[in-house]
Amino acid sequence: MPRLLDGINNANDIKKIKAQDYDKLAREIRDFLIQNVSQTGGHLASNLGVVELTMALHLFLNLPQDKLIWDVGHQAYTHKVLTGRKNLFSTLRQMDGMSGFPKREESVCDSFDTGHSSTAISAALGLVKARDLNGENNKVVAVLGDGALTGGMAFEAINNAGRLKTNLIIVLNDNNMSISENVGGMANYLAKLRTNSKYTGFKENMENTLIQMPGVGKALVDKLKRSKDAIKYFMLPSMFFEDMGLTYIGPIDGHNISQMITAFEAASRAKKAVVVHVLTRKGKGYKPAEKYPSRYHSVETFDVVSGSPLKKEKVDSYTKVFSDTMLRLAQSNDKLVAITAAMPSGTGLTHFMKQYPDRFFDVGIAEEHAVTFAAGMAMGGYKPVVAIYSTFMQRSYDQIIHDVCINNLPVVFAIDRAGITGRDGKTHQGIFDLSFLSHIPNLTVMAPKNRYELEEMLAYAVSYDGPVAVRYPKGDAYDGLSEYRAPIVHGKSEVLKQGSDIAILALGSMVKTGAEVAETLEKEGISTSLVNVRFASPIDIEIIDELTKKHKILVSMEENVRNGGYGQKVADYLCESKKNIRYINISVPDEYIEHGGVSELHKKLGLDAESIYNRIREELNLLK
Amino acid sequence: MPRLLDGINNANDIKKIKAQDYDKLAREIRDFLIQNVSQTGGHLASNLGVVELTMALHLFLNLPQDKLIWDVGHQAYTHKVLTGRKNLFSTLRQMDGMSGFPKREESVCDSFDTGHSSTAISAALGLVKARDLNGENNKVVAVLGDGALTGGMAFEAINNAGRLKTNLIIVLNDNNMSISENVGGMANYLAKLRTNSKYTGFKENMENTLIQMPGVGKALVDKLKRSKDAIKYFMLPSMFFEDMGLTYIGPIDGHNISQMITAFEAASRAKKAVVVHVLTRKGKGYKPAEKYPSRYHSVETFDVVSGSPLKKEKVDSYTKVFSDTMLRLAQSNDKLVAITAAMPSGTGLTHFMKQYPDRFFDVGIAEEHAVTFAAGMAMGGYKPVVAIYSTFMQRSYDQIIHDVCINNLPVVFAIDRAGITGRDGKTHQGIFDLSFLSHIPNLTVMAPKNRYELEEMLAYAVSYDGPVAVRYPKGDAYDGLSEYRAPIVHGKSEVLKQGSDIAILALGSMVKTGAEVAETLEKEGISTSLVNVRFASPIDIEIIDELTKKHKILVSMEENVRNGGYGQKVADYLCESKKNIRYINISVPDEYIEHGGVSELHKKLGLDAESIYNRIREELNLLK
Repeated sequence: MPRLLDGINNANDIKKIKAQDYDKLAREIRDFLIQNVSQTGGHLASNLGVVELTMALHLFLNLPQDKLIWDVGHQAYTHKVLTGRKNLFSTLRQMDGMSGFPKREESVCDSFDTGHSSTAISAALGLVKARDLNGENNKVVAVLGDGALTGGMAFEAINNAGRLKTNLIIVLNDNNMSISENVGGMANYLAKLRTNSKYTGFKENMENTLIQMPGVGKALVDKLKRSKDAIKYFMLPSMFFEDMGLTYIGPIDGHNISQMITAFEAASRAKKAVVVHVLTRKGKGYKPAEKYPSRYHSVETFDVVSGSPLKKEKVDSYTKVFSDTMLRLAQSNDKLVAITAAMPSGTGLTHFMKQYPDRFFDVGIAEEHAVTFAAGMAMGGYKPVVAIYSTFMQRSYDQIIHDVCINNLPVVFAIDRAGITGRDGKTHQGIFDLSFLSHIPNLTVMAPKNRYELEEMLAYAVSYDGPVAVRYPKGDAYDGLSEYRAPIVHGKSEVLKQGSDIAILALGSMVKTGAEVAETLEKEGISTSLVNVRFASPIDIEIIDELTKKHKILVSMEENVRNGGYGQKVADYLCESKKNIRYINISVPDEYIEHGGVSELHKKLGLDAESIYNRIREELNLLK
Repeated sequence: MPRLLDGINNANDIKKIKAQDYDKLAREIRDFLIQNVSQTGGHLASNLGVVELTMALHLFLNLPQDKLIWDVGHQAYTHKVLTGRKNLFSTLRQMDGMSGFPKREESVCDSFDTGHSSTAISAALGLVKARDLNGENNKVVAVLGDGALTGGMAFEAINNAGRLKTNLIIVLNDNNMSISENVGGMANYLAKLRTNSKYTGFKENMENTLIQMPGVGKALVDKLKRSKDAIKYFMLPSMFFEDMGLTYIGPIDGHNISQMITAFEAASRAKKAVVVHVLTRKGKGYKPAEKYPSRYHSVETFDVVSGSPLKKEKVDSYTKVFSDTMLRLAQSNDKLVAITAAMPSGTGLTHFMKQYPDRFFDVGIAEEHAVTFAAGMAMGGYKPVVAIYSTFMQRSYDQIIHDVCINNLPVVFAIDRAGITGRDGKTHQGIFDLSFLSHIPNLTVMAPKNRYELEEMLAYAVSYDGPVAVRYPKGDAYDGLSEYRAPIVHGKSEVLKQGSDIAILALGSMVKTGAEVAETLEKEGISTSLVNVRFASPIDIEIIDELTKKHKILVSMEENVRNGGYGQKVADYLCESKKNIRYINISVPDEYIEHGGVSELHKKLGLDAESIYNRIREELNLLK
């Protein structure tokens, strides 16, 4: 039987599909997504949830003239299917393949490259203002999840949207479940709206509200009343959004395409910002994902029938090591508390949350608040560990300076996903944290060489009377070099091997690579020193004094962009102290790093042992 | 006649004052503040507005056991008067004198060092959680202005406060006027609350609401009813705050101490977060400040009788040059738009706002939204100039990366107050922007040597097809070196003087200083090259290749911390390219810089011409 999907090859092809076939197409898209993602990995549950929503938007809009902005962007797979990228799904998140997020380079229908949360309304407002100044009348739609509403900048944008005297549609995709359970006043409020939804039919509630809406009026209402589809939703004036100057429509069944289109059309007639509150089910259409939406938020390859991952985790991740260490530290220190920004599972705090519910705080997708809240707890005598991924910690830069470090408060930042993170691509690489953290006065910045050192560094950080950041990579926790356990001393590195020709200063994840390089060099009779840097700030200048006395070449290695990184501090010190030594700075090139496998990317960027070895050989040859 | 103020020498001394003398004390405090600030400069209007509010808080609280957090903190002068710092006011904002902001080093009654907006509720929530975990029952109060509510992180905190099952008091100090006119849905909403305030007396509205409040009950209401002071306010249940799970009390007359105390006491009995909405008048009690609150927000020394500044501005500030240039550029480019985060006056955009109201956007104290909104406008074909002070731009770090630079959009960042800004102290110095901006891929970072070059750089930035940041200092625009007008070429510096012994690479504000140093050196027969660096990113490596060919010493100069700054990039390149040259990195030490005069601070930090000259001489002596 031919698939409807076979006829969908370009943007707007969906408009050729008959309304009675929408459900069939939705099923086909779901099957397509499940099959593909099971083979490539990717974001699954959120994409299954928005199949009908995306179809309705594509039926309602005229792309690319109209502008559609996906907040975060991990839910844009159906959008990609409907805009000519169906055949790229086998390359999803693979190196040089299709991105898992919207990408302007991939399609003119992607308005904005995204990856972080709560930005869509701001960007959409910019597009609206540009449209109005240009005298154009295309539609602008921002789609964001309920979790994104806990992010402050979404509120900043709503505050500005309240003044709008022209149309903007904000689709609130409410699945009652962002990545983890949603928290806070806004979540309770949305829950209230949801339970108030009685689907009591058209007449009772919608009529008056719609007639009163600017730009809607009686004519449309009459037309709606004549429409054959019985409209099952009613409109509940929401004081929150109305107080802020927006119009609220909803809640709408987010799996009913015709209801959504009707709502979007009504919304598009208002000369103001309109929130269309759409209820969807995360993971819809795939039983395992419906049952465990968090588990299927982002997946590796899996077996479609059983839902089980194809690859079993053999080695503990650094996240797991962090998780276990937090439990252990909490046991002996009742002042230890943990804070996450909507990612208890991703950061490894689920067990802590269960064991120490009073000492665990999930603040929502609110990285700014998370950090200042931690400052408050530290002022109150507690020892907060704020666990946030490297890329999302970028949101807290000012709070780290202003609230924690100026006040010199003992807050620990546990920075997971530091360095190259791989398949999520350029918005998710953790390649800037050393640059944005290690120039902040009072802040100590550390990175462990292996799983044991992560444990030790966390214990050290918790015992230290001042702010400390510990950054560690995504994925398998390195188990090697376990014989090196020199006690941690503030600002001091650890010498793993004494040599005389080449000196390697390796930071965090690069110690493993450094050891590999050293081994190869030694095999060739090149005597190599290997130093585990440990502290990116303050840097250990004594070890540099030491190493530069006898070695021919000094090499620093870090998984961070070159500018602002550890290596530039080393270079600065070499110049200042007038060392006469050849110096090689191994770091991530100063550019955005696209998606791909972590090892592939390391190789491409010259961060693998072989590339570094070659670079050192080259330098040695110059010396001859 | 003895002043009541003479009896106020320590925290809680105010409690000895009789209630009938409160007004007299308030007048004395106002006179004291006006007299002192007229001689030192400082924040005036906001401090005059909160005299009674501060008195009421000090009467209500028991400091330092109770915790009081001032958002921003520029309104804490009365708090300082009431906590034993009266005699330090002659040193306000002077080097080694009293800070203009809360400071834990100054007093145990200052809970938190602050300076940036919208952080108070987050910090207070942290203190509340710490208090509860400790089983203590001290009060925690956060005081923030209506403008601070437009900042997203205040909303993140409110969202979390909605879950609180224990007491937190949030005083919303509403003067209907943050630094400039408040904007957006929240402002309209507050305006609605204000006009709904009918002061209709106690019985009508307060009774039922109070009785229903958790922790209040009928007993308190009866007591209140028996109190002699007729309570003139009524309670208006605010759906916004109530929707978010907070209790709302207000509006209250912020100049009526007994009403405020009654409200605080009622608020403190609720086992949840309570917003006490207090209406105050900015500048109250000093006619010129009441009339022009914006002008008296932050002042230099002035004549008390006339209200006129004692020092007349003789030279245009860089802000003025930016202001004029924007008008000129807007005339010839109808795609140019300007965005400010609540500071049209401070950033110099008032004229632009008046002349091009459609192309001007004040988004509130919402630096995150400002930047992503700009990204949206750039996607829509416009050329946004986002004008934000260096220190506040720290809030937008993630948005600059994620929304503007990953998308490589032509947004211009006009970064005023870069470098040492002086009297506001450590929370306001602009000493990190080169560090947090110049490692961001795709972003061009520039700094002008004088007023003419600021004009040229802005024109260049607006014409450039990609993101550009232009940073310039506070204060007088340098008029010298006006004969050097080499056209701006991307990534290229400008050679001002060719010499052979010393080569100076001076960035932005340091070019003036570099010229002075060069002049002194030349007088002593030391041939000096002077280069105006222009671009902090990308750096001009060709000029370094050139200069290192013949000079003995290379000196870089920048007004930014050393870590992550321009100099470290120079050092990195010197090492990479194996230059054998003595190098001196002149930059701000890696520490927080306290308040003081700009020139004093430059001298103290070794950034003045004399210190730099001495440093170079020292190095020259080593070479002999």
